[in-house]
Amino acid sequence: MPSEFQLISQYFHRPRVDESVVLGIGDDAALLQVPHNEVLVATTDTFIVGRHCPENTSFYAIGHKAAAVNLSDLAAMGATPRWLLVAISLPNNNEDMIAELSNGLFALANQHAVSIVGGDTTKGPLSITITALGSVPTAQALTRTGAQVSDGIYVSGTIGDAGLGLQVALAKNTTLTAEHAHYCQSRLDFPQPRMHLGLALRGLASACIDISDGLAQDLAHILQASQVGAELHLEQLPLSVALQSLTKEQAWSLALNSGDDYELCFTLSDENFAKLPALEIAITRIGTITEAQSLRCYYQQQPQALTINGYQHF
Amino acid sequence: MPSEFQLISQYFHRPRVDESVVLGIGDDAALLQVPHNEVLVATTDTFIVGRHCPENTSFYAIGHKAAAVNLSDLAAMGATPRWLLVAISLPNNNEDMIAELSNGLFALANQHAVSIVGGDTTKGPLSITITALGSVPTAQALTRTGAQVSDGIYVSGTIGDAGLGLQVALAKNTTLTAEHAHYCQSRLDFPQPRMHLGLALRGLASACIDISDGLAQDLAHILQASQVGAELHLEQLPLSVALQSLTKEQAWSLALNSGDDYELCFTLSDENFAKLPALEIAITRIGTITEAQSLRCYYQQQPQALTINGYQHF
Repeated sequence: MPSEFQLISQYFHRPRVDESVVLGIGDDAALLQVPHNEVLVATTDTFIVGRHCPENTSFYAIGHKAAAVNLSDLAAMGATPRWLLVAISLPNNNEDMIAELSNGLFALANQHAVSIVGGDTTKGPLSITITALGSVPTAQALTRTGAQVSDGIYVSGTIGDAGLGLQVALAKNTTLTAEHAHYCQSRLDFPQPRMHLGLALRGLASACIDISDGLAQDLAHILQASQVGAELHLEQLPLSVALQSLTKEQAWSLALNSGDDYELCFTLSDENFAKLPALEIAITRIGTITEAQSLRCYYQQQPQALTINGYQHF
Repeated sequence: MPSEFQLISQYFHRPRVDESVVLGIGDDAALLQVPHNEVLVATTDTFIVGRHCPENTSFYAIGHKAAAVNLSDLAAMGATPRWLLVAISLPNNNEDMIAELSNGLFALANQHAVSIVGGDTTKGPLSITITALGSVPTAQALTRTGAQVSDGIYVSGTIGDAGLGLQVALAKNTTLTAEHAHYCQSRLDFPQPRMHLGLALRGLASACIDISDGLAQDLAHILQASQVGAELHLEQLPLSVALQSLTKEQAWSLALNSGDDYELCFTLSDENFAKLPALEIAITRIGTITEAQSLRCYYQQQPQALTINGYQHF
């Protein structure tokens, strides 16, 4: 049976040409060159199978998603993604599992030109903790605190798909067509961190967050940090055809309250909206920042009483 | 019951005055200022109770040690420690446990002027994954690759204590005096990362590593990376009075093969040894780098056949 060192070396040591990596895996720590005039952006998240994804998720998808949720946090800061450190706890020394998991992780890392520069493998219940590091010019970082009254509220892509995918995965929704079910499960298993959008929003968006816990709860973080409120127009929520096949109320509930979409939610003045470059992902205005510190929902101008909640890990 | 967000906020959000932290806990990621002309140093390690420490270890000690093992990796690179990201998986929302654990962690972090800038708390089997970040002037980083023939081999402090402490904790050694048993268990539970020594060795040591898996195995990493060999003189191994109360063979075995001491092992030319500043920790020369790519042990000039092994996580 290969030792821990051989495992790490074999599957997680795939050096790529990256001048920013002075010293990669193989010493006590990595040495990394942060660009001049940029600040380091750092985030960490633990990914536990059965908690952050269904038990039957493929190891390839687990590797992808564990990296994606961390890269998504960098996107929400407007950061250029640069490096990942990957700590994996495995119940046994299962080479097939490690191979699949590392393949999923490296596929996404390579797509975004990110190097894996550190790792730790221990025996234990399956979980992955990834630290994602990137950089951004200091004055251009996107935070949660700058939303201004009358800014537009935008989201990327479509929302609620991953929540519906989770219902499919848990066999709680069997009314979807096979095509829609497949689409939603793919959105659940393979979230795409919106790195290019984050870069495009640098210096333009007044606030930004990624939707991990549900639009309502994540937008509420922006509102709280910026000390403002919001009105949302439910008819403007960008819904996939899969969500459009549900009742309005079901679709709204998923779009507002289910997590794991990893789209970006951000605020923009009309002036800065006009400055946005062409984007590869659709963005949709869903509401407006208000002075009243509350979150109000409207459907065709009529106030709606909706249950707002979000996913919590406890 | 407090939510995840309240828990993190309450116990892990203890801002300290630190100009290098542009933005700390509370957004999607932290923004951190790496000093000009220094490279970022990054390492991650998972700490699992029952695997990296006995099940009955106090939560205060767990918090301390999880941070210490990561800071020790920075010390081994000659880095100034700066920031920690802390991902904790907890079986239940036990406030007393979190309070004790965070107290142990912050006590060590404060001692070394390190800020906790990111966190994630999830429900799951107890484990802690910490990413430690620091910085070092590029040319002065300590790696494993520079050991030269005729360099002296040194270790800090005394070695083998934590291994003996583990025997005590597991009730496998009941011959020690209460005082020695207490000392060794304290060495096991509260390793002190040798940050000041790491800084003092910058630009002087030709190679450096921290002793986490046992002197023999960790020194072997230096030998392999530097493509050299070593001879060790066992009578020179720095042993605590607790280890001196054992037979020579027992003491050597612990000093060479047991891990968790988190002392530094490093190599120095005689010329650079003379340049070392006054140190607060004792350092002891235990051998010499040789051309022959092997690790040979001598006792009073006589070759010794010893079993060399080290701790592996699988």
